[in-house]
Amino acid sequence: MAGRRKSRAPAGGSVPDRPIGVFDSGVGGLTVLKALSARLPKEALLYLGDTARVPYGSKSPSTVIGYAVETGDFFADRGVKLMVVACNTTSAVALDLLRARYPVPVVGVIEPGARAAVRATRRGRIGVIGTEATIASGAYARALRDIEPDVEIFTRACPLFVPLAEEGWTDNEVARRTVALYLASLRRSGIDTLILGCTHYPLLRAVIEAYMGPDVEIVDSAQETAAEVRRLLRGKGALRARGRGSASFFVTDAAERFARLGERFYGASVGSAVRVVLRGEAAPASRRPRS
Amino acid sequence: MAGRRKSRAPAGGSVPDRPIGVFDSGVGGLTVLKALSARLPKEALLYLGDTARVPYGSKSPSTVIGYAVETGDFFADRGVKLMVVACNTTSAVALDLLRARYPVPVVGVIEPGARAAVRATRRGRIGVIGTEATIASGAYARALRDIEPDVEIFTRACPLFVPLAEEGWTDNEVARRTVALYLASLRRSGIDTLILGCTHYPLLRAVIEAYMGPDVEIVDSAQETAAEVRRLLRGKGALRARGRGSASFFVTDAAERFARLGERFYGASVGSAVRVVLRGEAAPASRRPRS
Repeated sequence: MAGRRKSRAPAGGSVPDRPIGVFDSGVGGLTVLKALSARLPKEALLYLGDTARVPYGSKSPSTVIGYAVETGDFFADRGVKLMVVACNTTSAVALDLLRARYPVPVVGVIEPGARAAVRATRRGRIGVIGTEATIASGAYARALRDIEPDVEIFTRACPLFVPLAEEGWTDNEVARRTVALYLASLRRSGIDTLILGCTHYPLLRAVIEAYMGPDVEIVDSAQETAAEVRRLLRGKGALRARGRGSASFFVTDAAERFARLGERFYGASVGSAVRVVLRGEAAPASRRPRS
Repeated sequence: MAGRRKSRAPAGGSVPDRPIGVFDSGVGGLTVLKALSARLPKEALLYLGDTARVPYGSKSPSTVIGYAVETGDFFADRGVKLMVVACNTTSAVALDLLRARYPVPVVGVIEPGARAAVRATRRGRIGVIGTEATIASGAYARALRDIEPDVEIFTRACPLFVPLAEEGWTDNEVARRTVALYLASLRRSGIDTLILGCTHYPLLRAVIEAYMGPDVEIVDSAQETAAEVRRLLRGKGALRARGRGSASFFVTDAAERFARLGERFYGASVGSAVRVVLRGEAAPASRRPRS
């Protein structure tokens, strides 16, 4: 594996004033960005959505790792003080590698979500839903058992939840029946806590909550991740003390679709997104003369 | 734009004995490969599914064009005698460019589908369903009007059909309600012919047919595309006259998921698929040392 990567922070920028990098395969991580904006209103936030290659959730670990390194390098080149992997799939398979590669803290969404679930559970029966890749990785089960070895864990991949959320079908009969099909066995299993292990799923929260009933506590990692970032930066004296805060958006595919979908996830306009080409990613054909 | 690319056919191979290259973003094009296998049983078929970057249907033209060139070059390097773009999205946005780039015939799925629809229609009212990118491109409307300027055309993007087909939910209540939501206005519009403008959609054909009723003729491009390939090769004296025929499978992500999903689309095992890295595509992180 590659060696540790040098930081290329802009010369002279003090650590507190450097930006925070937040990345995801597409629009889902905007639910995490929203929580960060609310909890850290003075910070400069950079968001990168790898919309040319979304989704990651149905892809293999080695492919996701390759993409994660390209997005991590993008932020390293911009001198971020901390990276947030706002994508459960990437957190599940690439977090250790990213932590070894960069000299700044790298925060995923799985450990914070697991901690919140262990705090919330009353009978120690925790459910986890996510993409195929996240569930297959077993990352939530490991994180939960690291904190509390005695919990019982029930997991289910829900591949249709992401396209449903992106289509905006979050409160119709298709959504309700899809939720019922995926979650029937989790409901029967007697869980008291359910982790939404994918950043798209908060958009389906109302339908999921209605189906699971009032006795099941829903855990959304976004809030807990934002709290973890704040704790970490405060511990290092790296919180930004001045300024109004900002969010800049970068995408790898055309910005139009991101702008249209993103607002539902972020709760405010993301229309200023800029398209970038990552190293290793295919550039548009017209820029690649071949003989 | 890049100049015309040289053919790199294996020295000494006669044209009829060279393989046919078939490519798609994932498993959907296997419905076209199946039709080709049936109609051209002596040919050597190479299938490439760009499973690391699937789906193309929600991505922008320039991104899809970049990916198409990489997959086209893959086949050019293997000396194919003809390429089939078994993906409606790529056919919609990249066909002209691919035809200019390679010295061999490049057959898409849109022109054959449009021809079959014009033959089938009785009242000149044709519906087209496909991915967001295919419908936004207007490629079917152009192809239909080139053949018969007087047709009335009604289109609808159906983004959830691909994940439904991949999940295998092709005959349940979620599939039926999704079909009804997407196709209600097409049914009211009085079309007599409906083009399945995405290679995934044949898996949902029974539900679509049941909803549209017996008066609407369903057109699946796969059969017509295979007929077109046969016509073209026969016209050039390039049909393979001997041999038992074969199909080889290449994918850009791990082969396991392709093998699991692909069988439903191809109707036979695709378990022998081999993973390849395309030029321009990100290689797995472990192969890319950085300093």
